[in-house]
Amino acid sequence: MEESTGRSTKKKVVAVVGGGLVGALNACFFARRGFDVQLFEIREDIRRAKIVKGRSINLALSHRGRQALKHVGMEDKIVSQGIPMNARMIHSLSGKQSPIPYGKKGQVKHLRCSSVHHTLKLICHVAGMFLRSDGSEEHIKADLIVGCDGAFSAIRKQFLRRSRFNYSQTYIPHGYMELTMPPINGEFAMKPNYLHIWPRNTFMMIALPNLDKTFTCTLFMPFEEFEKITTGDEVIQFFQRYFPDAIPLIGVDALKRDYFRLPGQAMVSVKCAPYHIGDKCVLMGDAAHAVVPFYGQGMNAGFEDCIVFDEIMEQFNEDFSAVLPEYTRVRVPDDHAIADLAMYNYIEMRAHVNSRWFLFRKYVDNFLHFVMPRTIIPLYTMVTFTRTRYHEAVERWHWQDKVINRGLMFCATGAVLGGSYLLIKNPPDINKFIIPAEKMWDRLTALRTP
Amino acid sequence: MEESTGRSTKKKVVAVVGGGLVGALNACFFARRGFDVQLFEIREDIRRAKIVKGRSINLALSHRGRQALKHVGMEDKIVSQGIPMNARMIHSLSGKQSPIPYGKKGQVKHLRCSSVHHTLKLICHVAGMFLRSDGSEEHIKADLIVGCDGAFSAIRKQFLRRSRFNYSQTYIPHGYMELTMPPINGEFAMKPNYLHIWPRNTFMMIALPNLDKTFTCTLFMPFEEFEKITTGDEVIQFFQRYFPDAIPLIGVDALKRDYFRLPGQAMVSVKCAPYHIGDKCVLMGDAAHAVVPFYGQGMNAGFEDCIVFDEIMEQFNEDFSAVLPEYTRVRVPDDHAIADLAMYNYIEMRAHVNSRWFLFRKYVDNFLHFVMPRTIIPLYTMVTFTRTRYHEAVERWHWQDKVINRGLMFCATGAVLGGSYLLIKNPPDINKFIIPAEKMWDRLTALRTP
Repeated sequence: MEESTGRSTKKKVVAVVGGGLVGALNACFFARRGFDVQLFEIREDIRRAKIVKGRSINLALSHRGRQALKHVGMEDKIVSQGIPMNARMIHSLSGKQSPIPYGKKGQVKHLRCSSVHHTLKLICHVAGMFLRSDGSEEHIKADLIVGCDGAFSAIRKQFLRRSRFNYSQTYIPHGYMELTMPPINGEFAMKPNYLHIWPRNTFMMIALPNLDKTFTCTLFMPFEEFEKITTGDEVIQFFQRYFPDAIPLIGVDALKRDYFRLPGQAMVSVKCAPYHIGDKCVLMGDAAHAVVPFYGQGMNAGFEDCIVFDEIMEQFNEDFSAVLPEYTRVRVPDDHAIADLAMYNYIEMRAHVNSRWFLFRKYVDNFLHFVMPRTIIPLYTMVTFTRTRYHEAVERWHWQDKVINRGLMFCATGAVLGGSYLLIKNPPDINKFIIPAEKMWDRLTALRTP
Repeated sequence: MEESTGRSTKKKVVAVVGGGLVGALNACFFARRGFDVQLFEIREDIRRAKIVKGRSINLALSHRGRQALKHVGMEDKIVSQGIPMNARMIHSLSGKQSPIPYGKKGQVKHLRCSSVHHTLKLICHVAGMFLRSDGSEEHIKADLIVGCDGAFSAIRKQFLRRSRFNYSQTYIPHGYMELTMPPINGEFAMKPNYLHIWPRNTFMMIALPNLDKTFTCTLFMPFEEFEKITTGDEVIQFFQRYFPDAIPLIGVDALKRDYFRLPGQAMVSVKCAPYHIGDKCVLMGDAAHAVVPFYGQGMNAGFEDCIVFDEIMEQFNEDFSAVLPEYTRVRVPDDHAIADLAMYNYIEMRAHVNSRWFLFRKYVDNFLHFVMPRTIIPLYTMVTFTRTRYHEAVERWHWQDKVINRGLMFCATGAVLGGSYLLIKNPPDINKFIIPAEKMWDRLTALRTP
């Protein structure tokens, strides 16, 4: 990063390792504080590189991420390049589409940024970033090393060599594959301002709109299922069985061809602690907490890392020996909470979005939030539209869930007792009711089990 | 390992990496099947090395470990070098000692082997092991690599470089320190055939007898507590507060000196999956599942790995391409279960051994086991005295716990209802009972919370 002022006091050197989303943004944060920021990236400069075809990696920018961008004056530039998303759109097997809103009507919306590549280019461009990736072996003396080098972080490998570093990496049994849905007559093939979801229990497909009027469809399924399909005809059979409405929109030929372009890609969840070594090194972003992509919070959590660190820098007067341990203390429980939530959603999105109990509870939660906006806040709202600490959001969610479920149980018991009382007072012909009552039981059971 | 028969068919080469307990035993298992076993160990040959002072690492040999030794004809040789342990001996703060037996009277006992060093030397000696550790860089072409190289396995590091390898390492907040309790007048300073435990919630000390009539005391406490104590006088103050009866037995001067010999040592729990790469490489023992030392099953689980692998070798006719995936499938849930149990015991040993509820439940479990020996089997018994698969033991334990707790609840409810009925029939003077009843409630509460 170029020196912007001509101050004579020797500036501390911060080496940011990794020029991805979090690294680039973090470089801006440190530069704003007047550090001599050196940004290292092993890949070529993204502003001069051609766009790599193959994977786009969808990004959802919500409140936390926007706040971080705002801090360094980039919110508007990035947001103007995104597509707002108002709701989820559930595609049933019959092709019926039903929207499920994210939060209250009129609430600040989820914003879909087209791709890592695109967003990163913007951040680098706005920040006037200088990337060091010439392959030369130059020894830099840095006062602080900031590891923002992603889920497979090289900096984190150094942490692993030390004692008392807790670490876990969990690959989920599902892989993902990206397919493109082209525009029809120059227009989006489906309603654009939605996250389209085809929930099919074991399988799931989602589709997100791009600025060029295409949709990126992402198919999630267990690796062994990916491997079962070996011919173009089997691809079509598979789609006819599970996602029939998507076949004409993607196109039979494209589907047969693109399915075999790349194999299913793995997804990993990484948790670790501590995030720092002494006053010398700290991990942020995916390097500290890669999450599975089912809460749309990966980028937001990484961006929020930058604000949290900046806030602690302010609090402890930029004294790294105090800032780094405090950052670990404050941030680890929150990052672990969002990693767990993303894993929880991995199950919920596939299974529960289909279940009546899930939809009923969603409806109850939203209704209660409308009636008591400060007492009952849906988890999704806390995570996506506020900066409530992730671990506090989870605690509050468990509390609310208990209260609401007890309330529902109370109402149900009341209804049963009231009903029984009426039945006892006016005994009906038992034969008239015995079958409907059994059916009711089946319905209640079906409601609970997805 | 020397060739023992003169068969002309070319024998498959098995490279066992790590000549520790599991590596040495595994080498015996493969040799028995007629493989050309090459055993690699980076340290010097333990039969020629001097005993390293500092850490003994206590070992408890129970049923699973003995079964494995029996398979290769070494049970008697090893067992004759151990000290049988009949029970736990709980030391209260006042110095009172109360025994808690491990299982039924007369049941096969837990056996304490003096140390890793001693046991390993025995295994190597009996097996006539040849250790390759000359430091030369020789390229060996092996048909199978067996990684038995411990908790910080170099072989496992190669697994970590591959995609879809699940891995976690968790350091507990406690460290451990070993202190020696010398003999008094040539005899053991405490009763020898017991695992002595000083449970003090946050802190815990245990002591295990050695063949030379000493006890090895192991002090477990959080690292920050270790660091708080910086002078010999502070050591004595600390022991006076928590382990007063141990001071004269260890000796004031020894205590003041030995406490500062080594800092608190870290303990790690490692879980991973899969255990194999193709038909080429497999992990066993601590390399696959390092556990915290609170169930006394580390060595036993590692030894059982060898039998389980041997059983699968038999089942699949030594076809590595079938044996290795099956080994992962069968063994991962069991090793994860014992890792979890050891972690659970880490909490139980410190806290619950003190609680009346724990002792009461232990008593109920043992009583029910006596009355219905095939229906109710205490968890500890299943883990220590049988070869019940670890994960099945845990499932059965959860089931039994539910049944027993419900039974107790049912009895308690019955007693309360019966009591109430009698009270209503013969109403007593209320003032006579109000205080004892309150006290009873306090007692019940104290029983539940440790």
